[in-house]
Amino acid sequence: VPGDADATRRRLLQAATDEFAAHGIAGARVDRIAAAAGSNKAQIYHYYGSKDALFAAVFDTMVEQNVAATPLDVDDLPEYAGRLFDHYEAYPHVQRLATWHRLERGGVLLDSVLASNRAKIAAIADAQAQGRLTIRWAPAELLGLVLQLAELWHGNVPEFDSLVASATRQHRRSVVVAAVAAIVRD
Amino acid sequence: VPGDADATRRRLLQAATDEFAAHGIAGARVDRIAAAAGSNKAQIYHYYGSKDALFAAVFDTMVEQNVAATPLDVDDLPEYAGRLFDHYEAYPHVQRLATWHRLERGGVLLDSVLASNRAKIAAIADAQAQGRLTIRWAPAELLGLVLQLAELWHGNVPEFDSLVASATRQHRRSVVVAAVAAIVRD
Repeated sequence: VPGDADATRRRLLQAATDEFAAHGIAGARVDRIAAAAGSNKAQIYHYYGSKDALFAAVFDTMVEQNVAATPLDVDDLPEYAGRLFDHYEAYPHVQRLATWHRLERGGVLLDSVLASNRAKIAAIADAQAQGRLTIRWAPAELLGLVLQLAELWHGNVPEFDSLVASATRQHRRSVVVAAVAAIVRD
Repeated sequence: VPGDADATRRRLLQAATDEFAAHGIAGARVDRIAAAAGSNKAQIYHYYGSKDALFAAVFDTMVEQNVAATPLDVDDLPEYAGRLFDHYEAYPHVQRLATWHRLERGGVLLDSVLASNRAKIAAIADAQAQGRLTIRWAPAELLGLVLQLAELWHGNVPEFDSLVASATRQHRRSVVVAAVAAIVRD
């Protein structure tokens, strides 16, 4: 029945998300994903065709959720960065999957991300033209700075993380928000 | 003769650097490294013992060069970030190798990096205590912000990079320097 197939696909995607986040594409094992999902390799290849295609399905799903959960607010970029921080805290796999994507699929440009970035850059340019936002940075640069600062605490750098382990989540969020505020100040 | 062995090791390290930067640890192939270095797998295992140990040799060498080439200047953090940017431009493998290290060796804390970060944090704290540097950020946070902003243009995010491809190197450097200046402004 269709319900069963949907449930199987959901379990497969969740197991694949965990496996890819931990090991990347080259390091992931389809048989581990199958075991974790109570499925088998033949079923995975039937649904998705290949390990690469399974990663693409996992990543596209994550990107859509990410973009939908964190709409840009050009009139409050510090708080926008704070909400990105919240999202990374809630979904710790996001940064790792995005990083594997960058490293292992260097040639793959995601149209959805590209379109989302273009729309954000246009919104920033509009707000600048209307005098609602500092013009000290080009629109794309400002977006880049905000995204970079939002990721401050989620770079998975153990030699840095171990030195700031005592900072609370609320404090770490406040640093991100204050840093973006410093960037957008005229 | 020792000279030959040194030259062979240098060729192996260079070939391994290229291979690991492109493919990571799981994706790297020792036979490709051997072919690129005019060597063979037996010789690599003789010198380094394993693929993981070869990555460690590559990465430790890179980290030492990185730390030596970019000493911290607490009295001019914007220009320090600019010099980090210059280093990433000159050695494009640095960010990719560091990212593979984070992803594939999550549990490995490099003592040399940890010691370097501790020394930098102490230097920032000293400068703050002497009134030479803003106290709006904790020392470790300020170091984290500077390092994060220095990496602005080297995150290997194609969906962002393609939108800013026209920015010159000099301009990209000036954005990093200006962003850190905004952060350290009181």
